[in-house]
Amino acid sequence: MNISMYQASAPRFINTLKNLAAILEKAQAHAEAKKVDALVLTGARLYPDMFAFSRQIQTACDTAKGAIARLAGVDNPKHEDTENTFAELKARIEKTIAFIETVKPAQIDGSEEKELTIKLGPREVQWKGMQYLLGFALPNFYFHAATAYDILRHNGVELAKRDFIGNV
Amino acid sequence: MNISMYQASAPRFINTLKNLAAILEKAQAHAEAKKVDALVLTGARLYPDMFAFSRQIQTACDTAKGAIARLAGVDNPKHEDTENTFAELKARIEKTIAFIETVKPAQIDGSEEKELTIKLGPREVQWKGMQYLLGFALPNFYFHAATAYDILRHNGVELAKRDFIGNV
Repeated sequence: MNISMYQASAPRFINTLKNLAAILEKAQAHAEAKKVDALVLTGARLYPDMFAFSRQIQTACDTAKGAIARLAGVDNPKHEDTENTFAELKARIEKTIAFIETVKPAQIDGSEEKELTIKLGPREVQWKGMQYLLGFALPNFYFHAATAYDILRHNGVELAKRDFIGNV
Repeated sequence: MNISMYQASAPRFINTLKNLAAILEKAQAHAEAKKVDALVLTGARLYPDMFAFSRQIQTACDTAKGAIARLAGVDNPKHEDTENTFAELKARIEKTIAFIETVKPAQIDGSEEKELTIKLGPREVQWKGMQYLLGFALPNFYFHAATAYDILRHNGVELAKRDFIGNV
């Protein structure tokens, strides 16, 4: 039986991306109710040299998109990092989900041992498909998704962990 | 081929727990260098109704421990939440890793469809093994691990994402 590479990737990314989209809606509603500029929230960060909220969302999206593209061996579409508003960030998430949904299970399955060369900033690393997915892509994706959540919570947006975990 | 339930769980939990242990050492060294009370850091939180750092570590540990125990069908040892110092929290992580290492791959493998009843606060949910691992245990584990990291970064501890991701 076991877990297929598809089961461990696409539906997991999509589930958390949908949860993030719903979190963005709550953050937008919070900004409106409190009459604060939403750009203060999307530009917020936990420390000066950490990514702002918008960049956390963009990076979570790109981690998911890149993992699916690499494992499936299809072109990784470039999504420019131009979003500032919650609506724009929600559209970025939806664009990412739409890309992931173009990939069929059969394109991902069997990629456990696939040799991948991944550029991480200035260096290149060689990973096999399963190692890349479980050891890098998923932890990195959840890292940026959780940090986005943490930034909003730190700024008083009323969220609970079930907003992050969603419907399992 | 596919991914076994063991491959998707035990080594992933252990890898991030080891990274967290190394992060604790850096935070301890930071506190000493800056002459700040380490308990200020272990008691820090991002918002008044969020868990403090120590509780984030304890919850990450218990998520990993509980997942392994449930999937393997072995007793889930109770670890009391008594830790306050970085050294105590590191010992908690080491105790968690030691428990996970007692479980053999054959005890976890094949648990994809295993029926589990999980208590989440006041409610009980029914999940199958794979759904529980991929949809709840791993995201929840990374959520608390990343939030622990975020608390330290927010308090000026010099860490980078590679401390969180570690050796894939």
